[in-house]
Amino acid sequence: MSGEALDGTLVLAVGYDGSAFSGFAAQPGRRTVAGELVRALETLLRREVDLTCAGRTDSGVHALGQVVSVPVTRAELALPGRRVMGSLTALVPDDVSIRGAYRAAPGFSARFDALSRTYRYRISNGPVRPVMAWDWSWWVRRPLDLDAMRAGARLFLGEHDFASLCKAESAVGKPTCRNVMACDVRETEEYGEPLVAIDVRGNAFLHSMVRTMAGTLVEVGAGRREPSWVGEVIEARDRSCAGPCAPAKGLAFMRVEYAPGTLEPWEVSSSDR
Amino acid sequence: MSGEALDGTLVLAVGYDGSAFSGFAAQPGRRTVAGELVRALETLLRREVDLTCAGRTDSGVHALGQVVSVPVTRAELALPGRRVMGSLTALVPDDVSIRGAYRAAPGFSARFDALSRTYRYRISNGPVRPVMAWDWSWWVRRPLDLDAMRAGARLFLGEHDFASLCKAESAVGKPTCRNVMACDVRETEEYGEPLVAIDVRGNAFLHSMVRTMAGTLVEVGAGRREPSWVGEVIEARDRSCAGPCAPAKGLAFMRVEYAPGTLEPWEVSSSDR
Repeated sequence: MSGEALDGTLVLAVGYDGSAFSGFAAQPGRRTVAGELVRALETLLRREVDLTCAGRTDSGVHALGQVVSVPVTRAELALPGRRVMGSLTALVPDDVSIRGAYRAAPGFSARFDALSRTYRYRISNGPVRPVMAWDWSWWVRRPLDLDAMRAGARLFLGEHDFASLCKAESAVGKPTCRNVMACDVRETEEYGEPLVAIDVRGNAFLHSMVRTMAGTLVEVGAGRREPSWVGEVIEARDRSCAGPCAPAKGLAFMRVEYAPGTLEPWEVSSSDR
Repeated sequence: MSGEALDGTLVLAVGYDGSAFSGFAAQPGRRTVAGELVRALETLLRREVDLTCAGRTDSGVHALGQVVSVPVTRAELALPGRRVMGSLTALVPDDVSIRGAYRAAPGFSARFDALSRTYRYRISNGPVRPVMAWDWSWWVRRPLDLDAMRAGARLFLGEHDFASLCKAESAVGKPTCRNVMACDVRETEEYGEPLVAIDVRGNAFLHSMVRTMAGTLVEVGAGRREPSWVGEVIEARDRSCAGPCAPAKGLAFMRVEYAPGTLEPWEVSSSDR
């Protein structure tokens, strides 16, 4: 029943520690997030399922708010919410987290109905090696000038051809225009450790785009480039002009936005408890 | 030169991800934090060193603010700060972090001069499996009543014989009175995930005491016991009366307090830069 619109759609918000996955997308012989989710869903529903995600993440990239959709039958739409959340939580491995379950109309796609995606890139900055942040951030020892990074980040905003920020082999012959709605650089602290967070929201992103944005902003923050260089990078439409692709472990897929009213919480009804 | 007071003391603030260590204390044939620190210090100083820590942590327990002290010679006291921090950071493995270096008077002991120690125990509470918090918290699915936990936590405050909260075999024939100065239960959020944090400060702690306090408070929070039961547990002076010892991975050693002026930052002098 691949690609078929059934009676409705099961939508899941999913988190994962990307460290031990070969990325999101299913690949034969590799441990992938999609592979684990499909296995769990097929066990729950006792049939083959067709899974769509809001955004594929690369090997080593984490997520707190990935969204996936699966067409389901009328009978499946009536499954108790507690069974959906509880069974799937029990069926996926420890590095995958089922964070919410929702119902949507038939034909809903986690990918094509998404209005925007939000990612957070984390940097541990300074001479002290991070402890709790080790798996979730890029350790950059050289002091970063955050004001310069903010000035550079503003140049990413708006609709641009981002070919310079796309992994070279992925850009060939495909549209490379995207709309970046927010790119904020801020200091934060998590688990008692200081971090620099780059929060990026866009309608969609090219392959490695957020990591290349982070790598480019670090060039500016480290004083190796002026903020205005970010504009030149975009203008060039040439991947070799941008900064390096920042390490995968610093990136987390935080959130996907859909039109209001699209998703209905698959509530744990009172008869369920 | 074991135990000898030399010309002064090198004091280090140390963090570690306890996941892959058999605890802090050196043990032959085991990977321990002390083992790694001693190896790094002996490489830096080219001699045997005598390492003292503020508090031994068990296998799997983490630290952001462990403190260790090492007697050093006059010549070693003159080492540039950048060399001490930089070399040690390079010499320890990726799951150990050298967070600060200080000078103290000869005879200073990270253990015996400590006025208080602060630990944080983290709980991920609810049906959703934690992602970033997986390695740093105890996942408790049953909803916890934090007000009940706070009422129970207040009964830990003050000077008590905490024999009920000490690992049984460790308590035999040793003093078991300790002074708990703070035990606060609060909701927090780290890496976008909700957490319950139990912050405990005391003059010192018995073996497994903070984890048993956490396990006892979870019994109260889960509604299996009344808050007043905490008082009965302490009163009994019998380990079998307390709640379970909570998992090691939820515990982090956060801070040690010394008298003001005891530690002088081992600064990176201007000639150093």
